[in-house]
Amino acid sequence: MLPDAVREYLETHRQGLLGRFFELLRIPSVANDTSRPDQCARAAEWVRRHAESIGLEAQVVPTRGRPAVLAEGRAVEAGRPTLLVYCHYDVQPPDPLEQWHSPPFEPEVRNGDLYARGASDNKGPLMAFLYAAEAWQRTAGLPVGLKLFVEGEEEVGSPNIEPFLAEHGQRLRADAAIVADTSFFAPDIPSITYGLRGLAYLELTVAGPRRDLHSGVYGGVVANPLNGLARLLAAMHDDDGRVTIDGFYDDVLDITDDERRRWASLPLDEAAWREQLGLEALGGGERGYSVLERAWARPTLDCNGIVGGYTGAGSKTIIPAEASAKVSMRLVPRQEPRRIVAAFREFVAAHTPAGLRAAVKVNATARPVIVARDSAAMTAARAALREAFIDAGRTPAARDVAMIRCGASVPVTEVLQRVLGMEPVLLGCSRPDDNIHSPNEKYALEMLWGTAEAAAAMMGHLARPALARAPG
Amino acid sequence: MLPDAVREYLETHRQGLLGRFFELLRIPSVANDTSRPDQCARAAEWVRRHAESIGLEAQVVPTRGRPAVLAEGRAVEAGRPTLLVYCHYDVQPPDPLEQWHSPPFEPEVRNGDLYARGASDNKGPLMAFLYAAEAWQRTAGLPVGLKLFVEGEEEVGSPNIEPFLAEHGQRLRADAAIVADTSFFAPDIPSITYGLRGLAYLELTVAGPRRDLHSGVYGGVVANPLNGLARLLAAMHDDDGRVTIDGFYDDVLDITDDERRRWASLPLDEAAWREQLGLEALGGGERGYSVLERAWARPTLDCNGIVGGYTGAGSKTIIPAEASAKVSMRLVPRQEPRRIVAAFREFVAAHTPAGLRAAVKVNATARPVIVARDSAAMTAARAALREAFIDAGRTPAARDVAMIRCGASVPVTEVLQRVLGMEPVLLGCSRPDDNIHSPNEKYALEMLWGTAEAAAAMMGHLARPALARAPG
Repeated sequence: MLPDAVREYLETHRQGLLGRFFELLRIPSVANDTSRPDQCARAAEWVRRHAESIGLEAQVVPTRGRPAVLAEGRAVEAGRPTLLVYCHYDVQPPDPLEQWHSPPFEPEVRNGDLYARGASDNKGPLMAFLYAAEAWQRTAGLPVGLKLFVEGEEEVGSPNIEPFLAEHGQRLRADAAIVADTSFFAPDIPSITYGLRGLAYLELTVAGPRRDLHSGVYGGVVANPLNGLARLLAAMHDDDGRVTIDGFYDDVLDITDDERRRWASLPLDEAAWREQLGLEALGGGERGYSVLERAWARPTLDCNGIVGGYTGAGSKTIIPAEASAKVSMRLVPRQEPRRIVAAFREFVAAHTPAGLRAAVKVNATARPVIVARDSAAMTAARAALREAFIDAGRTPAARDVAMIRCGASVPVTEVLQRVLGMEPVLLGCSRPDDNIHSPNEKYALEMLWGTAEAAAAMMGHLARPALARAPG
Repeated sequence: MLPDAVREYLETHRQGLLGRFFELLRIPSVANDTSRPDQCARAAEWVRRHAESIGLEAQVVPTRGRPAVLAEGRAVEAGRPTLLVYCHYDVQPPDPLEQWHSPPFEPEVRNGDLYARGASDNKGPLMAFLYAAEAWQRTAGLPVGLKLFVEGEEEVGSPNIEPFLAEHGQRLRADAAIVADTSFFAPDIPSITYGLRGLAYLELTVAGPRRDLHSGVYGGVVANPLNGLARLLAAMHDDDGRVTIDGFYDDVLDITDDERRRWASLPLDEAAWREQLGLEALGGGERGYSVLERAWARPTLDCNGIVGGYTGAGSKTIIPAEASAKVSMRLVPRQEPRRIVAAFREFVAAHTPAGLRAAVKVNATARPVIVARDSAAMTAARAALREAFIDAGRTPAARDVAMIRCGASVPVTEVLQRVLGMEPVLLGCSRPDDNIHSPNEKYALEMLWGTAEAAAAMMGHLARPALARAPG
């Protein structure tokens, strides 16, 4: 649903758009770099100014953390639906710096890929949506009312997203919502994500004697917090990789036969994956489920960090006073973080060895989410991706847009659903091999142009749903 | 067997001896302080000069690490037996410094106790033996040939003791040997230790993916090295606290009925121990054995340190590339470190979860030891302790010298036995509440004088075994 004039605008103004994209990439807006909070403010201000320059009304809105940007554009005529688009301007830290082939905040195009921290996650998709808005504005006028919500704390877990939406929800309400922060299933398979896992991230501490003890004198007498912590953690899985915490699976939404069949048909090269990770076997998760089923729709319990006792070079013969582990559980739809945390606490209380004391602290939780697949927005998004990538020849091998889930979280998704009652569409805007969160993050220019086209087409399809193709 | 003149000498020269003891305590001869190796050389030189000042021939002898001191005194007449005495001049690091009530290297007497790092472990006992030698020298002449071996690396595990004894063994040969580096069972129970546990200290590393992975994307797919390490460690014990490694108990020397009975009669205040350690239950070791049996005569497997993944503040959602643990096994007589290490490796190979790779590195080993309890030296030592502590009224409540074991290692003991064929006597020279290896290490002056008397009496008893009382 892309008028020729809009498509032509997108094709003829690429050079100018790239120049502006470079400006944004040069701002090191690392959300967790507390030493330079001004860089996030700079990025927010840049986004605001750029949004205004293409005819949107824009404002930097303070939060309890780094500021957000809200921008709005009016539809060409009254009565058109409104589309909310979510992106984030903050980026992951760039380290380890020495592994970058070009400096992370000096964007460089090599072989059709633009290398820079944040290029793919998530400044590229943000620029693509702004480009789409600009193209409509400068030609036929916006076919839908547009609301742009650009966050600055996604990479630190969006700690203020819920109060922000509670406060500014009225301004964000729309007929459809896009979360532009997920990727294709494979570089050549345009994809929409309809489910994300949630999270319960805990810290488990096991304490024993008041001070570190000599393991010669006390070994065999006093319970060892490290042995005890290992025992507790190990008891949380059975031999089939299932989590043994009582009630853990009670609310898990079953994978449907349809999902099972669709996921099985996706081209997953497990051997290449093992090769790339340096593994002889993948080995994680529950027996009886495929890789994608385990990654997308089954809950997990992983230890993310552990420390206790002597960790320097050589030997020190102590029974340490305490040890602790970070443990996170990825949750799947219908699992309630609060209930899972309670079950975890009960398990720990019941399994702590004699002579030791265990404590559980909650670091973070996020609810899993699954969004409606039959909404008008979903239909429009699928049509838009098909048009911009498959029909336009960018991913000629793909026969259709893949409907996938993702094992990670994008916190805003669930909050938009729960707090504002929306059903956001997670429109794939990047490729899975973009090295996000790693050195040499890149964004293919073809993804930038394709996503801009998809974004523009999405607006068109949403404006005139009757013209949107039915899903294949 | 203490002539009046010797006893009188010991009683009238205390002030001078204390002055010299203070000099030695002021030298911070911390063996593992590689930034100041000169302090160990200073202490060795001080010991040499002091030994010469009391009429011994003394020499600082280089080792591959910090130097040792060898000193010799001739017996008053030919044909007398020779006694080898082992002590060490090196001390534990003093940290945490802020917990000391007086500076660790500025000795201070409070309430009859001398506070300083090394006061009890092991400079005090060293001074007591030198004092005993001085008293005999200045009065009746040495009743036995005396060889003093003062090491400078005990607190770092005596890494060079075996090559040193292999090289200088001839000079150390004697009819009897004392290791003056163990303590009483309780402050008022003079004790001789006849068994020590050995050690196998290993480092276990579990590796998985080539790099840290996002736990949202890979959780449930890839085996987690931290979960795997916890699982491996936990599998090493069964629910009764027994080590499950195949063959682990094969060579364990059983506790005899006599030992069981004697140990059960020792006054062990378990409640006070729990209180002091801040524990509701002791909880360590194998079911079915008493505290002392577990501490002295049963082998253990303890994790001494563990580290892996994210250990900073807050949350980071990774599956780490690897994790490692320090694991030490306390070994008891007849267990062979080499065989135990091999069994450990086999266990790890058999139990490493799919998708992970485990590696075992040996940091240190020490053999367990049990010495003869029927030697002339043992008989002389028991008589000497009885005379200096029980008969002299220093420990009036004790009816006899306790024959005990110890769960820790004093590496020289086993090497003297195996390499030189000696049966060293571990004569108790300190109290168990001396805070060795901890802040506010102390040595009761009464222990200093009592140990000097016991040392002098030991020489007398050894010279004329016929006059020694029979063991009670």
